[in-house]
Amino acid sequence: MSPELSRLGHVALEVPDLEASLRFYRDSVGLEEVEREGDTAYLRAVEEFDHHSLRLRESGSAGVDHIGWQTEDQQSIDGFAERLRDQGIDVARVEAGEERGQGEAIRFQVPHGHEFEIYHEMEKPDPPKERRSKLKNKSYISAETSSIAPLRVDHVQIWDTDAFEAAEWMQETLGLSVMEYYDQKDGSRWGTFLSASKNKIEAAVIQGESDDDCPGLHHIAFTSESAEDLFNAADTMNERGYPIDGLGQHSISRGKFLYVRDDSSGHRVEFNVRGYLVFDPNWEPIAWQEGDLDDRQWIGEIRGLDTVKYN
Amino acid sequence: MSPELSRLGHVALEVPDLEASLRFYRDSVGLEEVEREGDTAYLRAVEEFDHHSLRLRESGSAGVDHIGWQTEDQQSIDGFAERLRDQGIDVARVEAGEERGQGEAIRFQVPHGHEFEIYHEMEKPDPPKERRSKLKNKSYISAETSSIAPLRVDHVQIWDTDAFEAAEWMQETLGLSVMEYYDQKDGSRWGTFLSASKNKIEAAVIQGESDDDCPGLHHIAFTSESAEDLFNAADTMNERGYPIDGLGQHSISRGKFLYVRDDSSGHRVEFNVRGYLVFDPNWEPIAWQEGDLDDRQWIGEIRGLDTVKYN
Amino acid sequence: MSPELSRLGHVALEVPDLEASLRFYRDSVGLEEVEREGDTAYLRAVEEFDHHSLRLRESGSAGVDHIGWQTEDQQSIDGFAERLRDQGIDVARVEAGEERGQGEAIRFQVPHGHEFEIYHEMEKPDPPKERRSKLKNKSYISAETSSIAPLRVDHVQIWDTDAFEAAEWMQETLGLSVMEYYDQKDGSRWGTFLSASKNKIEAAVIQGESDDDCPGLHHIAFTSESAEDLFNAADTMNERGYPIDGLGQHSISRGKFLYVRDDSSGHRVEFNVRGYLVFDPNWEPIAWQEGDLDDRQWIGEIRGLDTVKYN
Amino acid sequence: MSPELSRLGHVALEVPDLEASLRFYRDSVGLEEVEREGDTAYLRAVEEFDHHSLRLRESGSAGVDHIGWQTEDQQSIDGFAERLRDQGIDVARVEAGEERGQGEAIRFQVPHGHEFEIYHEMEKPDPPKERRSKLKNKSYISAETSSIAPLRVDHVQIWDTDAFEAAEWMQETLGLSVMEYYDQKDGSRWGTFLSASKNKIEAAVIQGESDDDCPGLHHIAFTSESAEDLFNAADTMNERGYPIDGLGQHSISRGKFLYVRDDSSGHRVEFNVRGYLVFDPNWEPIAWQEGDLDDRQWIGEIRGLDTVKYN
Repeated sequence: MSPELSRLGHVALEVPDLEASLRFYRDSVGLEEVEREGDTAYLRAVEEFDHHSLRLRESGSAGVDHIGWQTEDQQSIDGFAERLRDQGIDVARVEAGEERGQGEAIRFQVPHGHEFEIYHEMEKPDPPKERRSKLKNKSYISAETSSIAPLRVDHVQIWDTDAFEAAEWMQETLGLSVMEYYDQKDGSRWGTFLSASKNKIEAAVIQGESDDDCPGLHHIAFTSESAEDLFNAADTMNERGYPIDGLGQHSISRGKFLYVRDDSSGHRVEFNVRGYLVFDPNWEPIAWQEGDLDDRQWIGEIRGLDTVKYN
Repeated sequence: MSPELSRLGHVALEVPDLEASLRFYRDSVGLEEVEREGDTAYLRAVEEFDHHSLRLRESGSAGVDHIGWQTEDQQSIDGFAERLRDQGIDVARVEAGEERGQGEAIRFQVPHGHEFEIYHEMEKPDPPKERRSKLKNKSYISAETSSIAPLRVDHVQIWDTDAFEAAEWMQETLGLSVMEYYDQKDGSRWGTFLSASKNKIEAAVIQGESDDDCPGLHHIAFTSESAEDLFNAADTMNERGYPIDGLGQHSISRGKFLYVRDDSSGHRVEFNVRGYLVFDPNWEPIAWQEGDLDDRQWIGEIRGLDTVKYN
Repeated sequence: MSPELSRLGHVALEVPDLEASLRFYRDSVGLEEVEREGDTAYLRAVEEFDHHSLRLRESGSAGVDHIGWQTEDQQSIDGFAERLRDQGIDVARVEAGEERGQGEAIRFQVPHGHEFEIYHEMEKPDPPKERRSKLKNKSYISAETSSIAPLRVDHVQIWDTDAFEAAEWMQETLGLSVMEYYDQKDGSRWGTFLSASKNKIEAAVIQGESDDDCPGLHHIAFTSESAEDLFNAADTMNERGYPIDGLGQHSISRGKFLYVRDDSSGHRVEFNVRGYLVFDPNWEPIAWQEGDLDDRQWIGEIRGLDTVKYN
Repeated sequence: MSPELSRLGHVALEVPDLEASLRFYRDSVGLEEVEREGDTAYLRAVEEFDHHSLRLRESGSAGVDHIGWQTEDQQSIDGFAERLRDQGIDVARVEAGEERGQGEAIRFQVPHGHEFEIYHEMEKPDPPKERRSKLKNKSYISAETSSIAPLRVDHVQIWDTDAFEAAEWMQETLGLSVMEYYDQKDGSRWGTFLSASKNKIEAAVIQGESDDDCPGLHHIAFTSESAEDLFNAADTMNERGYPIDGLGQHSISRGKFLYVRDDSSGHRVEFNVRGYLVFDPNWEPIAWQEGDLDDRQWIGEIRGLDTVKYN
């Protein structure tokens, strides 16, 4: 049987000042710190049961360590490893527990330079009793964290100097589905929007301008509940002095967004509200041509057109 | 390979007065009428591309004709047919187009009396030009329909005098996943919450009291965007004189709800907001015991504890 | 010139366990504690500049000490005192600072037993620097308090065995405007909805059944921003074990509501969202007759039909 | 007694194509057309009882005819007339009914060129039966109009080459209260935010660059209920091809906004959500200095920095 991914699972980032970044991700964004081990912190969102959806490690400079994808089953790990080696890609084994809470995994660099991890098992530690939600279908009491705490990891946006090929590789080798894509007037692909789950996007692969930003990570998105939450999050970030890089709604994916930045590391977070789900077994990728959207590729504002690169 | 369902697709209802029911479902709830053929109308929601998620047929009395499940692929239809016949269940073939827009299908009565249909193909007709959304990832201009138009079909709630066995059958024979269940103090199962997709529920199977209501359909839920929409929908229904059967939030599934009723037929609609998604490949069903939720199985109000039965 | 009230200013409550009540009002509802003096705590909401909108004092049992109305100017205090004495009502002088932050005031019992205070001056202390909003038109950083923190005091609901006369007295003697009223089929008045400001209600005067609940205070309402906030507040209260006494929308005033209760004292709080404003100089009171609203005097649920009486 | 204004009442605009503008204001924004008389249409919002808050008249070119302020009582009209004449300002009498639904009024040009009207009486026509809300405290069934219909007129933003003097004149002669103001580093006033009612703004007087835009009207704001509504309104405008000139939240006034434009006339509408109310009798104007807000005078986007001038 073919190996299969089930979803985007987590992202591992490097930050120059762990305490400063925890003030952002934990105290302001509202992720929960599940475990700390030396210079590494593991966080998850209030609705998540898995050990972490974000790993932060203190390092000399900001960077992206890897983007983690969870497989449908254990044997898919070997299946992907074999498929990657057939392409001549170096596949590194990661022992169970090397990344805390996680079973055995593989790491590799995709042809265009993005660093991915593939794993299946992830512990589901119970929150501390005083923060455990009474609702069994949710991990944490939202009211005990930041008032703007998002629910779960939603997607990543990555930039590549050849976004078309990178996305095609992810589709063919990793089996991600293309939900939407956007082509420019010269026929080149500006962006491909892929997903391993039924979420409208788990990886947006965007055409970057230069090696300065590619391959790189533009942002990690977490799911928020409502448009009100976006304004509340903007208010919180503004009060605490974190830069706001945009507020509005994308036409592609229909997600409403707020972009904010951890100024100590430069990593960007999107609070993302809704968009659609693809339960349709006969979904045809939505094909946009430049001009289709006039000047409405989004409403509102986006600024901050740069990425953090892989270390 | 095992046959596989991908999602709850549509529900076919019988109503005593088609025009009256269209005033409810189309003009008030805000579903779009895609096609009319004699005494039968086909409707879908503003985000849906498939031909219909609701079929209404005028009949002597209100009833439920069938609940339709879409398969992951074409061959799954035969796979399920074989599995059902192995259990001694009568399987009726439905020719392509017999239900408008739909490919070939099978219909059958599950052991506890619910009438199900299994199909794979469904046409995706384009909306009339003046109602077609500019956004290619959405069918209709929301503003051209009712102001409270929901996005897509979300789930059904069905009642059974043996809810445990009915749910177990759906799990074992149809391959639905159990997301949550709720057991009473005497050990009996009050409700099982199943899904073919990654939605938190597609079929809630609830223990009914008597044959008067079992097997029967309590409501069809459609997805709305926000809590504000629930209040707007309540306002609309109140202005138009349709009965409101509840407003609040379920603890199970965490969906926020508004229940309203088509008074001409007695069929009930839920406007449902959010709840969670299950992209986790290692999801363990959430097990509730009576008492876990104290008196908070929901907040707010639910009334209207009856169903419409299958004809 | 006639003395004039400008708004409902604050409510002074007695509670059997101050720390327990602070866990409710401050830590859960999200009011800010401005000052503590012995067994008395002063609180205000995140948008309020005045010293307090709620005073809590530990006492042998739960009770209401007084409801405070702020005048348009300083001389209105004497104007009202004179008017009250002309009616034979005992008027007690309250020295400046006796109630912390407040200038000189008068207190009195209205003919039907409610205890009112009238004052004009109230200090506007700045919040501690680390909680001071960067927005000069708001006091506190919302994100530093409870995630469901309401914005300002909205109204009180008081019960009286002769609600008609009590409301008429408040209109004639205190100059409150009648925004709406509701008459029963027998011609008796069930409720009068009055305001000194332009808010849709500042005092709802409701017909009570017996001296057990009259004269008494059913709830204090604070203003929340959105329907989402009501569900968030319900979630917070549910997690922390505070009783929820209703969720829905009133037809009178059109305010959306969540009722919750401080179980240590029995005092009830309403989170209230919107409703209308009366800037119209020619507003005619909205006159409801029993039956006008069918069964829709509100949608959703209200329970908890009792009050806390004046001490 | 001093003459007194109670609120901003209506705005009278000139438009080159009445039918095109009605498609915008009535069919898309969701105002109700109350009356048509020749080339003039009168509109109001779903919560308003007064005859109109917007008058549209077809004219050779787009322009602003006048901004209408309602007085607290009838005699204030003469009071203001006298005060204006004492300043040497020409005061024109408008007969009752000359502007439909309105009692007698005066019109005049303020020293800086804005055209104002002052009136007291305005009819309160009942909506047609099929559009009359069951809720007596509201005029129209929201669901019968556009799905994004705002509730009431909120404020106007006007530009002046001497915004300080224009605002000071409005404060001193018309008795408007200053809620906030914003001073630039060179000491000049960029904007003054005034109100006759208790709303956070009824007239924002902004420093314009040149006579090309001054004196002129930048936008009329109508009140919407929630942040969700702003996104819904943006969606509607996008679908119908109307230009969107911004989405976000102001720091001054704290109102959330969406700016859209009637492309046939160039007139701009703001959908405005919340902000605060000033019931405090001792409110001190909020004084902003350039730099206080860093780059956060608003979050989100504003474009479209031009006005429509008075004809």
